[in-house]
Amino acid sequence: MEATAQEVDAAVRAAHEVRGALADRAVRSAFLRAAADELEAAKDGLVETADAETALGPVRLTGELARTCYQLRAFAGIVDEGAFLDVVINHPDDTATPPVPDLRRYKVPLGVVAVYSASNFPFAFSVAGGDTASALAAGCPVVVKAHPDHPALSEYVAKMLRRAAARHGIPEGVVGLVHGFDAGVELIKHPLVAAAGFTGSVRGGRALFDAAAARPVPIPFHGELGSLNPVVVTEAAAAERAEAIGSGLAGSMTLGVGQFCVKPGLVLAPAGAAGDALLKSLTDAVSDTDAGVLLDHRMRDNFVAGVAERAQLPDVDSPVTPGAGGEHTVSAGFLTVPASRLTAEGEHDLLLEECFGPVTVVARYEDEAEVKAVLSRLPGNLTATVQLSEEEAAGQGGGAELLRELTPLAGRVLVNGWPTGVAVAPAQHHGGPYPATTSTSTSVGGTAIERWLRPVVYQNTPPALLPAELRDENPLGLPRRFNGRLER
Amino acid sequence: MEATAQEVDAAVRAAHEVRGALADRAVRSAFLRAAADELEAAKDGLVETADAETALGPVRLTGELARTCYQLRAFAGIVDEGAFLDVVINHPDDTATPPVPDLRRYKVPLGVVAVYSASNFPFAFSVAGGDTASALAAGCPVVVKAHPDHPALSEYVAKMLRRAAARHGIPEGVVGLVHGFDAGVELIKHPLVAAAGFTGSVRGGRALFDAAAARPVPIPFHGELGSLNPVVVTEAAAAERAEAIGSGLAGSMTLGVGQFCVKPGLVLAPAGAAGDALLKSLTDAVSDTDAGVLLDHRMRDNFVAGVAERAQLPDVDSPVTPGAGGEHTVSAGFLTVPASRLTAEGEHDLLLEECFGPVTVVARYEDEAEVKAVLSRLPGNLTATVQLSEEEAAGQGGGAELLRELTPLAGRVLVNGWPTGVAVAPAQHHGGPYPATTSTSTSVGGTAIERWLRPVVYQNTPPALLPAELRDENPLGLPRRFNGRLER
Repeated sequence: MEATAQEVDAAVRAAHEVRGALADRAVRSAFLRAAADELEAAKDGLVETADAETALGPVRLTGELARTCYQLRAFAGIVDEGAFLDVVINHPDDTATPPVPDLRRYKVPLGVVAVYSASNFPFAFSVAGGDTASALAAGCPVVVKAHPDHPALSEYVAKMLRRAAARHGIPEGVVGLVHGFDAGVELIKHPLVAAAGFTGSVRGGRALFDAAAARPVPIPFHGELGSLNPVVVTEAAAAERAEAIGSGLAGSMTLGVGQFCVKPGLVLAPAGAAGDALLKSLTDAVSDTDAGVLLDHRMRDNFVAGVAERAQLPDVDSPVTPGAGGEHTVSAGFLTVPASRLTAEGEHDLLLEECFGPVTVVARYEDEAEVKAVLSRLPGNLTATVQLSEEEAAGQGGGAELLRELTPLAGRVLVNGWPTGVAVAPAQHHGGPYPATTSTSTSVGGTAIERWLRPVVYQNTPPALLPAELRDENPLGLPRRFNGRLER
Repeated sequence: MEATAQEVDAAVRAAHEVRGALADRAVRSAFLRAAADELEAAKDGLVETADAETALGPVRLTGELARTCYQLRAFAGIVDEGAFLDVVINHPDDTATPPVPDLRRYKVPLGVVAVYSASNFPFAFSVAGGDTASALAAGCPVVVKAHPDHPALSEYVAKMLRRAAARHGIPEGVVGLVHGFDAGVELIKHPLVAAAGFTGSVRGGRALFDAAAARPVPIPFHGELGSLNPVVVTEAAAAERAEAIGSGLAGSMTLGVGQFCVKPGLVLAPAGAAGDALLKSLTDAVSDTDAGVLLDHRMRDNFVAGVAERAQLPDVDSPVTPGAGGEHTVSAGFLTVPASRLTAEGEHDLLLEECFGPVTVVARYEDEAEVKAVLSRLPGNLTATVQLSEEEAAGQGGGAELLRELTPLAGRVLVNGWPTGVAVAPAQHHGGPYPATTSTSTSVGGTAIERWLRPVVYQNTPPALLPAELRDENPLGLPRRFNGRLER
């Protein structure tokens, strides 16, 4: 089943050959909507196939499929609106230094996009996920590297996408699919691959990032690699609602058996009575959580070993010991450590690395200086969360300052919420300083389309030769910047 | 004068420390305008210093300084308008899948930007050039690596920028300056450097790009490396105005002694009488061009050697032999070759590499198939130009198809013009497929500011804690996307 180098080459060439079929935006948006329709029509079979391969359960998988279809339709809307083309038109201006000729700029698709599927989102971050949806929306054919945890589902989804393509006259090469580790490496090196999207581990993602950068012609590599997702609970917040914060944290860190990239993995909670109450609530809620099945055995092994390695560090306690549950399952739990152990380099830095699965680390701080010191040592994150008291949220106290400190750490900053659950919305940003992502872009939300485009400007080009998008009379009704003025 | 590793570290730390002084957009735009004022006030001294180091002459240098000041003020306007913040606000929506919380996104500065100066633009692509102007506009302090061809001018310009900063209460660390090759390497590796801009050679740029990608935390590297800037002259265009095209080409390829990154370096001209007439005109005009001084001796040596190596290839003629002029000067010229020599891999591929200086290669084609074959083998370019007949420009004939073929090759496509002269305008795009640039961004024009920003979204954040840019009531009057609707 693993693709040979020749098969990878054939898939990429097929995708490259059909790129012209995506040139018309109306065809693209119709294709994306048809893809959502096809996936919905095949819902029962898709969810059954996905559950057999991932054990994520029909409820979660049905929801994830709905999200995936919503996302495809959202990108269809974005294609129709056309704001992403970023049209800018300047008429000639002889008063400028140097003089400005007639310039008309918009964005064109980069070419074939390589998409690397994630284990933990068989629908939303895999064959028909956000990378594919945004690349097709941009006008780029894709070749997807299937995740080995769900090969049959990958084939099934690809078939539905190709069926949708056929309905609109687009050849099936528009969605290629390859299996196998070596195929993934071949793919990133292929001269006709113009960009890549990836969701996965730091190790795998960095290796592919390095390969993309080392090509004779380097290409953009948009990878989402890993994130600790710190949470800061202020003294006042803990005093006000220790129980709610403890149970909320338990819900977020155990959701999906802790297999979300935005799982809160480090919580800064106050020492003292309020923090103790928070821990009591967390203990109760986590103890009540059923053991769960991780996506594959390698992940289970890594989780069990990762927890054990962390738990044996000096001053680390495990009020609820996470680890092996049954033969295939793992049980949720959490570790505690004095925050002072994390304020300077040392063996406890292991606690600042992501541990995939249902575990979090609660670092108990004595004062704000310790919070600041720990925050200053964190790597980049997808999210950073702060739990504030009612008064702090209203602007009294250090809430604003805390937000200012968290902003450099992450791409999404939350107040009094939990990071799990990434909404698909125009304003969404799912990305952050490395290793959260390898670029400044997002893999969720409307602006994800920007990753697969590059600008081109036409200078002094006669109207008869201009693309319709760039004509003065704006026949397509596009939002644009016209002689400096924003037109919507 | 070369900076030690310690001095580089001190400059980067100083820049990092003062980043808060750029937080206020009003301060930033005032600073940029003050910088333009200071440079203009020092015009005579600056031009004299620049001419002594580069021999580019007072006319060209005065114009370049004016362009640089225009650019600083243009970015001030962009900062004031605030569209670059890309504000997107979504109110909660429970009907979405999954439900959308309150999300408010805008862009924040990345941090300290390393700027690598160019030899050939001592003002416009150096200490106060486009990279610096756009980085400061984005809110990023800079540390500039001076070009060894104009160290005294670099110090002078940095002094003017710091004086402008002081006028608005910004510490002088906001513009750092370091000299020396090793300092440049230290700079790209410094943990507090968040991004880099570069204009220069493929070799130097690629080495720095590789170093940026190999860091423990990789950073964006926006480099402009090299470009052949192909020109296609159609049979009909040559028949219609051979003389004008020949003399126009001569003017463009010899402008600034051929030291522009957008110099036309490969011209596809028809075989036969019309093409002969074009060559005659080119020969006359180039022969009339005075010998000129290149920026430094290394460039002169490379030019003389590069021309000689190309001229000895089979079937290559040099109707006007370019090469050594006087002791310090070089003379302009051009080479010709049958286009059939360039349609398949071979020793003639050397002609598809940029040769810095006043030389171009005219490839004579027999038919359109040869044109297509040569275009399909070109590396990425900053520009691609087509010379069309009146009828073709009006939409009759193959003009539109030619534009479609040129678009994948370049970031700027010109009709019936010449690529030299890069206007500073909102619609400008100065970039292109590798090796033209190492990213999809531009180094000239308003969107150059996007290179130094990253998005952050705030989720369910109480109004009292939100930055003013993200409040519903829009106190700063920013263009934005509000619940899906574009507001301008």
